[in-house]
Amino acid sequence: MPVPAPVLHPDFNVLRLSHVELGVTDLAASRRFYVDTLGLQVTHEDDAVIYLRAMEERGHHCIILRQEDAAAAHALSFKVFEDADLDRAAAWFKARDLATAWVDRPWQGRTLAAVDPWGTPLEFYAKMARLAPIHQQYRLYHGVKPLRIDHFNCFSPDVDAAVAFWNDMGFRVTEYTEDEASKRVWAAWMHRKGGVHDMALTNGLGPRLHHTAFWVPTPLNIIDLLDLMATTGYVGNIERGPGRHGISNAFFLYIRDPDGHRIEIYCSDYQTVDPDLEPIRWDLTDTQRQTLWGAPAPKSWFEEGSLFKGVTPRQSTLTAAPIIAPY
Amino acid sequence: MPVPAPVLHPDFNVLRLSHVELGVTDLAASRRFYVDTLGLQVTHEDDAVIYLRAMEERGHHCIILRQEDAAAAHALSFKVFEDADLDRAAAWFKARDLATAWVDRPWQGRTLAAVDPWGTPLEFYAKMARLAPIHQQYRLYHGVKPLRIDHFNCFSPDVDAAVAFWNDMGFRVTEYTEDEASKRVWAAWMHRKGGVHDMALTNGLGPRLHHTAFWVPTPLNIIDLLDLMATTGYVGNIERGPGRHGISNAFFLYIRDPDGHRIEIYCSDYQTVDPDLEPIRWDLTDTQRQTLWGAPAPKSWFEEGSLFKGVTPRQSTLTAAPIIAPY
Amino acid sequence: MPVPAPVLHPDFNVLRLSHVELGVTDLAASRRFYVDTLGLQVTHEDDAVIYLRAMEERGHHCIILRQEDAAAAHALSFKVFEDADLDRAAAWFKARDLATAWVDRPWQGRTLAAVDPWGTPLEFYAKMARLAPIHQQYRLYHGVKPLRIDHFNCFSPDVDAAVAFWNDMGFRVTEYTEDEASKRVWAAWMHRKGGVHDMALTNGLGPRLHHTAFWVPTPLNIIDLLDLMATTGYVGNIERGPGRHGISNAFFLYIRDPDGHRIEIYCSDYQTVDPDLEPIRWDLTDTQRQTLWGAPAPKSWFEEGSLFKGVTPRQSTLTAAPIIAPY
Amino acid sequence: MPVPAPVLHPDFNVLRLSHVELGVTDLAASRRFYVDTLGLQVTHEDDAVIYLRAMEERGHHCIILRQEDAAAAHALSFKVFEDADLDRAAAWFKARDLATAWVDRPWQGRTLAAVDPWGTPLEFYAKMARLAPIHQQYRLYHGVKPLRIDHFNCFSPDVDAAVAFWNDMGFRVTEYTEDEASKRVWAAWMHRKGGVHDMALTNGLGPRLHHTAFWVPTPLNIIDLLDLMATTGYVGNIERGPGRHGISNAFFLYIRDPDGHRIEIYCSDYQTVDPDLEPIRWDLTDTQRQTLWGAPAPKSWFEEGSLFKGVTPRQSTLTAAPIIAPY
Repeated sequence: MPVPAPVLHPDFNVLRLSHVELGVTDLAASRRFYVDTLGLQVTHEDDAVIYLRAMEERGHHCIILRQEDAAAAHALSFKVFEDADLDRAAAWFKARDLATAWVDRPWQGRTLAAVDPWGTPLEFYAKMARLAPIHQQYRLYHGVKPLRIDHFNCFSPDVDAAVAFWNDMGFRVTEYTEDEASKRVWAAWMHRKGGVHDMALTNGLGPRLHHTAFWVPTPLNIIDLLDLMATTGYVGNIERGPGRHGISNAFFLYIRDPDGHRIEIYCSDYQTVDPDLEPIRWDLTDTQRQTLWGAPAPKSWFEEGSLFKGVTPRQSTLTAAPIIAPY
Repeated sequence: MPVPAPVLHPDFNVLRLSHVELGVTDLAASRRFYVDTLGLQVTHEDDAVIYLRAMEERGHHCIILRQEDAAAAHALSFKVFEDADLDRAAAWFKARDLATAWVDRPWQGRTLAAVDPWGTPLEFYAKMARLAPIHQQYRLYHGVKPLRIDHFNCFSPDVDAAVAFWNDMGFRVTEYTEDEASKRVWAAWMHRKGGVHDMALTNGLGPRLHHTAFWVPTPLNIIDLLDLMATTGYVGNIERGPGRHGISNAFFLYIRDPDGHRIEIYCSDYQTVDPDLEPIRWDLTDTQRQTLWGAPAPKSWFEEGSLFKGVTPRQSTLTAAPIIAPY
Repeated sequence: MPVPAPVLHPDFNVLRLSHVELGVTDLAASRRFYVDTLGLQVTHEDDAVIYLRAMEERGHHCIILRQEDAAAAHALSFKVFEDADLDRAAAWFKARDLATAWVDRPWQGRTLAAVDPWGTPLEFYAKMARLAPIHQQYRLYHGVKPLRIDHFNCFSPDVDAAVAFWNDMGFRVTEYTEDEASKRVWAAWMHRKGGVHDMALTNGLGPRLHHTAFWVPTPLNIIDLLDLMATTGYVGNIERGPGRHGISNAFFLYIRDPDGHRIEIYCSDYQTVDPDLEPIRWDLTDTQRQTLWGAPAPKSWFEEGSLFKGVTPRQSTLTAAPIIAPY
Repeated sequence: MPVPAPVLHPDFNVLRLSHVELGVTDLAASRRFYVDTLGLQVTHEDDAVIYLRAMEERGHHCIILRQEDAAAAHALSFKVFEDADLDRAAAWFKARDLATAWVDRPWQGRTLAAVDPWGTPLEFYAKMARLAPIHQQYRLYHGVKPLRIDHFNCFSPDVDAAVAFWNDMGFRVTEYTEDEASKRVWAAWMHRKGGVHDMALTNGLGPRLHHTAFWVPTPLNIIDLLDLMATTGYVGNIERGPGRHGISNAFFLYIRDPDGHRIEIYCSDYQTVDPDLEPIRWDLTDTQRQTLWGAPAPKSWFEEGSLFKGVTPRQSTLTAAPIIAPY
């Protein structure tokens, strides 16, 4: 098997993905997309930045939108189990000669900034301001009724190496795509919190953020969002789907925000808490890998992604390609 | 407006579409598709033919599958309000110099066979054997849980003339697509029973049967069917969808049976019983006409259809074309 | 069979139920219920009255809320096929010595007011102001996403006689409940437009309006409404359900407006356009008649209803009673 | 707050609930219920016992049905993170003077049997035979489409003490019901795997097993099961629901198996992996605690439960009672 055995006792305990900050070029336009259309809830906003949470989250933010001159992704943030994990994390990165820094982040406790070997900005914290539950304030639900952030997916120029890196951090592979010819991993889905993934890695020019995903109650909420977007000026922002993924078995939709940042709406994958869960292998040539129902993804889905601010991506050395739609 | 005013007091009273007979080349394969996969109920079968009904239907059949050497569509059948309508129908066709004949059809009363001006075989009857209700025998529901036949859609070489013909029969236009340049109707949706259509006409090499549609309870049943087909050897039979039609506002999926006969799974259009319902016009270049969410239909969807047995189709004189996907 | 044969060629052609006017004691409170909570769309409002339509309706109103000193139901209104049907209707009522009058109703053409033999106020019209479609303006959908008015249900002191009356008007029985002992009909469901009913009659102190029903897309919309009502101060307005009716096979919820007028939210009954559709008989003692899943309806559901303004109801002579919940 | 602070570093690591064994008096009848009706998959069966798994589970069994002379519940079983946790668990129980034993269980590795202070039989294991995934074999899905076992709920004669016991084992309280007068906990929901609960404790004659719950994809699957049960002889086995819980916010249905063992069908609670998740308090008198929509639970739901084989339950000392339906 080309994916490493899980590290069951990692040096520090990452609990789950937490949030991402996106640089956006028109904050008002982004607000219409994320708040009015998707239905995320504002927890703070001023002229420069909007903090959002989803309906069942009690942490202060799962996405931060910041007005900037150019669209870009900032750090991918993760919540660790307890404060001491932050020091253990700092040591872990230092042992790998990877830069770290302690940074101040509003509504968060001690926060460790770090980078992976390809320059991807990562942040870790243990404590964030907790808010009162709103999951039973049903008058607030609208748009796609987003319940929580679910995962990140990043382009990687060396997925095998990236899987090894995240695996050492305790992320466990649930499913992966192998290029039969080269015996290399083309993409992998890795989790901490008990779903199919907190982080996925896809072969390509990277590091770049491929998408951020939000969990919704049922496929019908995704259909509702499509109807809403199609009749409120967002029909061009619908990129791929709806469909059932082969990998993860989730029901999905990919959309693009006004700056092109890709958002996945996602539901109904499966529980993965067993440490002896066997990863599921898919062949890169399997047409049902991307979409169980057979439809290929469009070129844009394979080629476009958000740059991490200040990070220059590199070409992948793996040139194998999946089936791509002719448009 | 390029569509004619409705004929509110037609010469005879067509109640609704009723059923279609399809010639199939491998009856066992067709049974696996229509019975095991779609979930239609067998009301009669022998070595040569299978009669099926959907879950809420009390008439004996909505589709007849007949073993033949070549795949073909036979007559499109309609139920009229009462027996005397059959004689009025016969007179109406004769007044237009269109051939008619009284034919024997098992489980049906008097049945009138006729043709439209392009040779499309049509049949009309008032009485069919009635069966006990099964709509509350929930153990029988499976597959896509088909509730009833909903409509036919045919390619027509002259949609304007075909609309005039069906309009004279009392079919009322609910929505239509116009080619702005030629001011001709490219497609039209016409009803008798109070939904968006019993019969649709689409510009193209015709007459050919484009598809037969079945009504299901909710979009989730269509997702269930996709999952089932994708994992039971039918992934190649999924042609288009799922999606929301612009026209009709229905949620849809197009699939192909083992002989290539196209079936639409359809739900959630709207009630059209008002005789003063204003038809909705769509422009042929409107990309949301086919699919509200913007995805174009594939070439096969525009080009392929079932021949009516023994009927040679003609090219359409209207060459305007909608947006077609590049595959 | 204790229900009469359908009158297939009635003296005048009622197309469908159309709307009801309700006297309400706090128009602002009623607006919060019908508009903010249910999601009906305002087509006109002033200090005295609010006109509403549902999402797929093109007629100007399906419900009228009028500020009054006491809650009451006004006329039940029906749309006829064409203007001449109004004169035929007037003659039909006069032939039965039932009072009629031509009345002015805003946004309606000629309108005939009449009464049934028990004093129930009825109105008939052929033309109502038509509005532009909004069924694809998905940003307007909220609450329970009501698509159209579906039916009325009235208490009747003599259901057998009432069925005969409505049957003469061309309403056809689809299902009915019989009291085995007396061989009398305890309740009946009768339609014109091709669903299970435009009008239902239930044994009891009458005439009174039992409820007005709205059609919604799927059972999930009803669950959404329950969640919304339960968390916005309306938990006490939830009376019965959700559940599956035995009769009609529809998924339902009964709620009460701020004045106690009962509204049913309803979906997924079946198509009944066939004139030879055999009515389904239920026994009054069948516990699955009311709710297929077995739960009995509460006392209030059997006992409470809206008075028609100025009409004194009479006790029913049929004292047989169904299973009622002990609360 | 009357619930204890979570133990973030418990002596041993319970991963999740795993399975329960039920003694049943007619194995064939139980098979019809669990396999034919609910849709669980048989992984082993002989004349004496049936092992079942749900659709997304890869472990060999989540429920074991054993033919016995009298209905009873056997041990509640839990999967621990790794083999060494079993020894740590044994030590933990011994330190509390609670009986333990190493037992042989087919398809399981080392298995520790233990009891809680009230005699509830518990079992722990780290390894179970793993089976190939079937979650994408959609032809196998039927009934309620059960995806996985979700939780146990037990009557307890001393919920405060039981919460302390499970809390020490690392189970974290997500929601609880307090009796305002006595300041005692009336019920509590406690988790290990990241949902609202693996184990709930309810005040009453105990220990007894109140119910075992299975997770399903959407509320519509629960409606499908109700329709199926209502028309296949199981209408009397429907006990409570469908509804939305106030506590947990889950959509639910309670049914009884042929021996009266209670099964909950459950979906759409929320993610609870954060160790700093604040428990939600409910007052015992809150009518929306049980069902957000206000309907009280029936007496049977509060009074009836499965005895653990050979264990005599005791009365609770807390006599406070919630709102109970008058039937």
